[in-house]
Amino acid sequence: MAVAAGRTGRPTLAVVGATGAAGTVMLQILSHRADIWGEIRLIASPRSTGRKLAVRGEEVEVLALAEEVFDGVDVALFDVPDEIAERWAPIAAAKGAVVVDNSGAFRMDPEVPLVVPEVNPHALRVRPRGIVANPSCTTLCMIVALGALHAEYGLRELVASSYQAVSGAGRAGVDTLRRQISLVAGTELGTHPGDVRRAVGDDTGPFPEPVALNVVPWAGEARADGWSSEEMTVRDETRKVLGRPTLPVAVTCVRVPVVTAHSLTLHARFESEVTVAKAREILATAPGVVLFDDPGAGEFPTPADVVGTDPTWVGRVRRALDDPTALDFFVCGDNLRKGSALNTVQIAELVVGAKA
Amino acid sequence: MAVAAGRTGRPTLAVVGATGAAGTVMLQILSHRADIWGEIRLIASPRSTGRKLAVRGEEVEVLALAEEVFDGVDVALFDVPDEIAERWAPIAAAKGAVVVDNSGAFRMDPEVPLVVPEVNPHALRVRPRGIVANPSCTTLCMIVALGALHAEYGLRELVASSYQAVSGAGRAGVDTLRRQISLVAGTELGTHPGDVRRAVGDDTGPFPEPVALNVVPWAGEARADGWSSEEMTVRDETRKVLGRPTLPVAVTCVRVPVVTAHSLTLHARFESEVTVAKAREILATAPGVVLFDDPGAGEFPTPADVVGTDPTWVGRVRRALDDPTALDFFVCGDNLRKGSALNTVQIAELVVGAKA
Ligand SMILES: NC(=O)c1ccc[n+]([C@@H]2O[C@H](COP(=O)([O-])OP(=O)(O)OC[C@H]3O[C@@H](n4cnc5c(N)ncnc54)[C@H](OP(=O)(O)O)[C@@H]3O)[C@@H](O)[C@H]2O)c1
Ligand SMILES: NC(=O)c1ccc[n+]([C@@H]2O[C@H](COP(=O)([O-])OP(=O)(O)OC[C@H]3O[C@@H](n4cnc5c(N)ncnc54)[C@H](OP(=O)(O)O)[C@@H]3O)[C@@H](O)[C@H]2O)c1
Repeated sequence: MAVAAGRTGRPTLAVVGATGAAGTVMLQILSHRADIWGEIRLIASPRSTGRKLAVRGEEVEVLALAEEVFDGVDVALFDVPDEIAERWAPIAAAKGAVVVDNSGAFRMDPEVPLVVPEVNPHALRVRPRGIVANPSCTTLCMIVALGALHAEYGLRELVASSYQAVSGAGRAGVDTLRRQISLVAGTELGTHPGDVRRAVGDDTGPFPEPVALNVVPWAGEARADGWSSEEMTVRDETRKVLGRPTLPVAVTCVRVPVVTAHSLTLHARFESEVTVAKAREILATAPGVVLFDDPGAGEFPTPADVVGTDPTWVGRVRRALDDPTALDFFVCGDNLRKGSALNTVQIAELVVGAKA
Repeated sequence: MAVAAGRTGRPTLAVVGATGAAGTVMLQILSHRADIWGEIRLIASPRSTGRKLAVRGEEVEVLALAEEVFDGVDVALFDVPDEIAERWAPIAAAKGAVVVDNSGAFRMDPEVPLVVPEVNPHALRVRPRGIVANPSCTTLCMIVALGALHAEYGLRELVASSYQAVSGAGRAGVDTLRRQISLVAGTELGTHPGDVRRAVGDDTGPFPEPVALNVVPWAGEARADGWSSEEMTVRDETRKVLGRPTLPVAVTCVRVPVVTAHSLTLHARFESEVTVAKAREILATAPGVVLFDDPGAGEFPTPADVVGTDPTWVGRVRRALDDPTALDFFVCGDNLRKGSALNTVQIAELVVGAKA
């Protein structure tokens, strides 16, 4: 599965979109993990040419995206808008780089593996287009825990509800929540119909409704039959990552006034009978998962504690009272770390044969 | 089903616990509905004797709870702590009043009907103890919509996740959220592990974790096998109100930073195939339900719009993509109105034969 190393003896990495929100977290994560890379080349639009960004404690000059920047690159991480990825990922791949793309452009392409290193590392082996895709943040915040249980029990059906943080909608989502929180602080708002809406005004940022003192049962664009694009994405990606193309999945995505860390409640039905003891053992030993589950002692994950950390946190593990094959549990993960840049970096490390 | 009217020709009502949080909303609701009552007698602890409270535009003096205050009372609404209700409801009933109790003391008593006027008004007929119970707020915020679909299709299984407002934990819950919101407003909090917790300090009020910029997957006390009392309550009450004592129900209760109005995502599986068109027709015409469901046009209920209103709002109605017998939808209701005082008043009106 390893690719040839670059001229330094260590592989050369390119980060395309290094100046963006996802790219910025990517550079932080690259700076804090074991240093396995030779050159790290930073790429963005011509607007950013000549800017210097810090990675691994060094200042590196940003190059403008062009064919030649991929010369000698072993792995190229793409953190750019869908249409830029769609155009440039094949060019980088043609130049011999393995592309790991963080956009939505290739996730459902049958010739592009969708990879979560803890769950389906084997999928990396077959990448006919030289491109590997990173799942969306909502899928990534639950799939490591769900995948560990699936490996043991075989998932038969999933019902999920999300509690999604505003940073999943980028910097604009965070700014919107912070602005609205300032407008409602110190008031009696939230008690009369429409009072929050009147106070925050028409500027609801990337959200269709006020998000402070509120929850908004909508994320993404409208799809057929009343579903949102975010709900369809979680369904499609879960099926693809778990290798179960016909798995029944019902998801409702809801935005909540949390800055960072997505949570989900999961009702997962398996092929055979489950026990809480065994499920807890699986979760406690699964790589990338932290089991934090003793509600009597106040132990369950919440976004306030999970933000800024790498693993998927799991709590509230219960066997369904009326179905010995089903588990109900609560998962929480940082949508900017495992939900995005961290998983991309892990895939890149796996591509070059380093330990993820 | 009607009881005898009092001496004025109109029935006499007593409100026990009139000075409390639930009692206060009760007096507001009584003041705004069609006036069917003769005397309204207000009762609280001896601490409140002589206080005057406004109801129907008049100042009424509060009486201390004692056997004699139930003389001539037709219906007594109880809004007092469980242990006070447990002791005094049978006394009021022995005096000939029909007690409608808003506490948790009698909800699961097999000799006490648990009533939602739009769903199971017939249950009122058999009340051997002279006591009728009001369900908890979380059940009440979903059950009118669910009950309408159940009447048509027959519910076979329910998976629910809640997004519960802090006022479900009383005045202390609201004060806690408001205080925490003031502490996080205008800051960068919510970005680093534990930063919200450090900012709000140890005083998390009635909640086990900070609730501002957070979601807390816990409500109530610990029950067997990892379940919370709130989750068990929703399950037990749903079964009892729908008259399906063995219905499979899996609930996860989560507290969110919303002042008032509980929301739930529901995945409901029925006895037979459903269609969205028919389901929407049922919901659009069901008494006590408002269908608000055109997400492409930004129409779905959120707590900010639902707070302060009487109905159960429903949106995001979809048929499960992999199960033609299941519907996924989102419900939202005011936990202090339909979720509490309003349903109690509606039961009382039904007891005396007025239109609910
Ligand atoms: N934000 C997240 O949490 C998140 C999570 C998962 C996945 N993603 C995905 O990551 C991608 C980037 O998102 P983002 O939030 O980081 O966006 P962003 O902050 O707007 O950054 C966009 C990046 O793309 C570069 N870019 C734009 N047009 C370009 C062009 N014509 N040629 C070369 N580079 C160009 C920008 O460079 P300049 O600075 O020079 O304009 C910048 O580095 C998107 O596909 C998004 O869906 C984001
Ligand atoms: N808050 C809600 O949203 C809500 C919703 C549904 C159901 N409930 C239920 O309603 C009940 C009351 O809750 P709450 O939030 O209104 O509580 P609260 O604000 O503490 O009010 C308690 C009421 O009970 C009275 N009371 C207390 N001890 C008494 C005694 N020994 N004798 C007579 N009266 C006594 C109090 O009178 P004084 O003022 O004289 O002390 C007061 O009127 C509880 O069972 C609760 O579970 C509440």
